[in-house]
Amino acid sequence: MRILATYRIAVAEAESRARAEALAAEQSVEMPVAAIDDPHVRDEIVATVESIRPHADRFDVTLGIAPATTGHEASQLMNMLFGNCSLQPEVELVDVKFPDGYERAFGGPRFGIDGIRTLTGVTGRPLTCTALKPQGSPVAHLAKLAHTFALAGIDVIKDDHGLANQPFSPFAERVPAVQRAVDEANRETGGRTVYAPTFSGGPAALREQARIARECGVGMALVAPMLVGIPSFIELQAVLGIPVLTHPAFAGSVRVAPPLLLGKLFRLFGADATIFPNHGGRFSFSAETCRRIANCARSSWQGVRPVLPVPAGGMTVERVPEMLASYGTDVMLLIGGGLLSAKERLLERGREFVAAVRA
Amino acid sequence: MRILATYRIAVAEAESRARAEALAAEQSVEMPVAAIDDPHVRDEIVATVESIRPHADRFDVTLGIAPATTGHEASQLMNMLFGNCSLQPEVELVDVKFPDGYERAFGGPRFGIDGIRTLTGVTGRPLTCTALKPQGSPVAHLAKLAHTFALAGIDVIKDDHGLANQPFSPFAERVPAVQRAVDEANRETGGRTVYAPTFSGGPAALREQARIARECGVGMALVAPMLVGIPSFIELQAVLGIPVLTHPAFAGSVRVAPPLLLGKLFRLFGADATIFPNHGGRFSFSAETCRRIANCARSSWQGVRPVLPVPAGGMTVERVPEMLASYGTDVMLLIGGGLLSAKERLLERGREFVAAVRA
Repeated sequence: MRILATYRIAVAEAESRARAEALAAEQSVEMPVAAIDDPHVRDEIVATVESIRPHADRFDVTLGIAPATTGHEASQLMNMLFGNCSLQPEVELVDVKFPDGYERAFGGPRFGIDGIRTLTGVTGRPLTCTALKPQGSPVAHLAKLAHTFALAGIDVIKDDHGLANQPFSPFAERVPAVQRAVDEANRETGGRTVYAPTFSGGPAALREQARIARECGVGMALVAPMLVGIPSFIELQAVLGIPVLTHPAFAGSVRVAPPLLLGKLFRLFGADATIFPNHGGRFSFSAETCRRIANCARSSWQGVRPVLPVPAGGMTVERVPEMLASYGTDVMLLIGGGLLSAKERLLERGREFVAAVRA
Repeated sequence: MRILATYRIAVAEAESRARAEALAAEQSVEMPVAAIDDPHVRDEIVATVESIRPHADRFDVTLGIAPATTGHEASQLMNMLFGNCSLQPEVELVDVKFPDGYERAFGGPRFGIDGIRTLTGVTGRPLTCTALKPQGSPVAHLAKLAHTFALAGIDVIKDDHGLANQPFSPFAERVPAVQRAVDEANRETGGRTVYAPTFSGGPAALREQARIARECGVGMALVAPMLVGIPSFIELQAVLGIPVLTHPAFAGSVRVAPPLLLGKLFRLFGADATIFPNHGGRFSFSAETCRRIANCARSSWQGVRPVLPVPAGGMTVERVPEMLASYGTDVMLLIGGGLLSAKERLLERGREFVAAVRA
């Protein structure tokens, strides 16, 4: 059984067969197939052209990629799917279907939607999420914001993904201080608000951040897999032991369809919740793309837990009813700047957000 | 002094100022600037709009990004340069200028062109490079190919970047066997051919591969930074201690200008030689793009060693004179499939390649 990868290619009909065969060679043996003598390589390693179908003014070519060529490892899987052809602007990767059992090499989310519901104690309703911003703020300011958001009853407070390990709020100072502020507010309210700090940097930095987070009882992690690198993201999960919320930063620089990358692949690689730019905000994803991302995150997949979709990017409290109607119950709504704009009315605005979601 | 990042934006002239300011907020504080009370954040953290210039039917917007916001770390630098706006298809990142001294946080290539010339003993002429292919071949076949290429006098023999750690030629078996074959040929010829195996996978796998490579005396490494992740690529260099040849797989070509990513940024992050798809082969980079990649790799940059450009991707021995005329002496020409197609005439074809470059 092959991995079925579908590419949308801008090519004339007369050339579509030759282009598909060239892509099959490019994405597997990367040499002229005629120069290969080994029958095993020709039959078992060279990618097959499974189908060529017109799609609008382009062609959808589905290749059959031999699972063995991926070494069942993330960087090599991404290489086989979109390594060289990422450099060919006429080619987009639009979907991938894995053979049954392939997912066991990765395992997918360790917690998924159920694990996040258990952690936050939220059942039967969507979750709420907000962000600590802006970067450049001193730690005390971020901790105070977190305290206010937790008092308002927001379920998950994440760092802005721009809060990394800068001198103005280093991870080792910021994360314990914010976690303490959230713990205090939880004691006041009896709530279970969870803090998700940003993990960034190289493997050694990530391990150190995981140690600090564990020490102060952090409940969740925010990671941008395309910034730290997918294999590093996967290895981090083994030492984290808490649910991971993925951020799509830098994920748009390659021509991989967002439902595939932010939904299906991030899920395969272990995201428990996946942030994506909702339509009608600061980003231009269509409503259909967003619906498909949520579908890839939550739909049934043998052996791989469903993932919480997290629409974001310029959302407001006013849009909550519409978002709930679109995404249903298994969703976490993320409003960051839309709350912070309330300034001195932050607590009230936070409470309005929570009330709108609970309504 | 700010980092000057230039973005090419598809926007109407009437909206170009507002779009530039929105991008400045998106790529720094990621919230409405009006909601920020802290004067330090407004003055020192929010990205500035330095210029807006028409470019064909689009606008080149240069932002001033505060170096402190990058935490002087690669994943956060890429986040500040192209994190969120990678998700805005109307935005491309076309150039970055770093303030003097910024490069000290990274250090750039440890070896660069001079280091590779010392390693290979090649002075006063371009270098030659070829690739072991196809994946799926048994280790003995790859070792035999390497032996033949080394007999032909090719300077650097790299793994195909699709040779990762698959069961048909696992790193731990393949790399010692190929290195032995190259060593043998070097003893026969008195040459100094160097082998560059593919490093892939997560941080733990990379460390283990570095250990194996060190044990058997491997002289160079092939790494695709966008597949293993840039921060992981950087951390690997510290344990490798040998020059690194970067591969552009998964580096996508559309939204970060190739001269910036494959030339300038890979150089900042430590590449000693950088492979890119030459014009007129299987990829559609223009001659001008290729010239600019080579320029970004080799041009004078205070404190950062020059990097060897490696044009590749469907090149042939027949094109050697033209490539030498384009790229001059400080270049390494990579011909893979173009040699392998010679089959039983492989040794002769390799010798013709070497002779053409030495001519």
